Amino acid sequence: MQKEVSQAVIKRLPRYYRYLEHLKNNGISKVSSGRLAEMLDITASQVRQDFANFGGFGQQGYGYDVEKLLKEFSSIIGLDISHNMIIIGAGNMGRALCGYKGFKQDGFNVLALFDLKDGMTDSGLPIYEIDKLEDFIHNNRVDIAVITTQASVAHEVVCQIVELGVKSIWNFAPVDLEVPSDVVVENISMSESLYVLSYKMKQNVNINEE
Amino acid sequence: MQKEVSQAVIKRLPRYYRYLEHLKNNGISKVSSGRLAEMLDITASQVRQDFANFGGFGQQGYGYDVEKLLKEFSSIIGLDISHNMIIIGAGNMGRALCGYKGFKQDGFNVLALFDLKDGMTDSGLPIYEIDKLEDFIHNNRVDIAVITTQASVAHEVVCQIVELGVKSIWNFAPVDLEVPSDVVVENISMSESLYVLSYKMKQNVNINEE
Repeated sequence: MQKEVSQAVIKRLPRYYRYLEHLKNNGISKVSSGRLAEMLDITASQVRQDFANFGGFGQQGYGYDVEKLLKEFSSIIGLDISHNMIIIGAGNMGRALCGYKGFKQDGFNVLALFDLKDGMTDSGLPIYEIDKLEDFIHNNRVDIAVITTQASVAHEVVCQIVELGVKSIWNFAPVDLEVPSDVVVENISMSESLYVLSYKMKQNVNINEE
Repeated sequence: MQKEVSQAVIKRLPRYYRYLEHLKNNGISKVSSGRLAEMLDITASQVRQDFANFGGFGQQGYGYDVEKLLKEFSSIIGLDISHNMIIIGAGNMGRALCGYKGFKQDGFNVLALFDLKDGMTDSGLPIYEIDKLEDFIHNNRVDIAVITTQASVAHEVVCQIVELGVKSIWNFAPVDLEVPSDVVVENISMSESLYVLSYKMKQNVNINEE
């Protein structure tokens, strides 16, 4: 049933979750679709349409129960289970990611990093030689492989990882990865984001010049 | 006129640019809207609608001229001019960003990084004490400030930067920034991307279990 959910709705899920968490942390127990709409900069009817994708969550009386809704989103996003990650590439980006405290709070645990030689991160995580990847994946439950290598080797590394049975790739390398249909890929593209900023800057200049 | 362009179209601009660059690098001089649509996983009519936002680019005969179209997109995105950047926060993320070769090729030049104390990156870029920010911005043209600080200090830093006249912020800190309406912000949210991956993983599992 959930297979039909549009990309736009999927992209909004994290934002719903984040705002609900914010409301809960501020002791707010009820929220209207209007308030959620305002926070996400969409319409209240869009919020209700979004929620309809997941069964509607049964709004009662003056609004949704924040804690219940947060639990629903946590389950939809998959934050109610823990995920084990490995990071391929122990350069600055790989190290930056394993230093993010937010991931652990959400149940994403970095088990190890892999690079050309053995080592350790500042926070004490092991860095293994890439040759040890196969053994590691056989001996540990690896849910997500994070790719922070150079673009030139990313594809080769991903082929190997997929062959070893990892089904989810979080890709920071500036390259389009080809994977089998049962493997999930999410890309973070720095240059695409920078291009959007650049576009907005140019428009801003145009507006100012009018 | 370009102010009305939708967020969805803006998000596709970098991908058009990237694919056109790919075509040019492969010696392909003509491209149809159908082929572009295929590459972007949208419909050909959507491509033509997208292009209509920018005057249509006058498709002739068997397709668009790749080189001309690339030039148009380069100008629309603002890649035909150079941009000076400073990076606030010389931790792993800041250092990872200043090591990205792609930025320089696109005319985005990192002038310096700022952190708690003076130093230098592996690639020889200066790191200045944050106290020197004001002097630096007065003496250099800074187009973009990249925020890679902890969330807790990001807002304070951005207030200072905006007061000093910088109009564009590329934000990697996990926090919503409030800025005046003439300041442009583009956020990269690691956790939102990870949540989307997590959601897709969960759906994948559901599909497999059916």
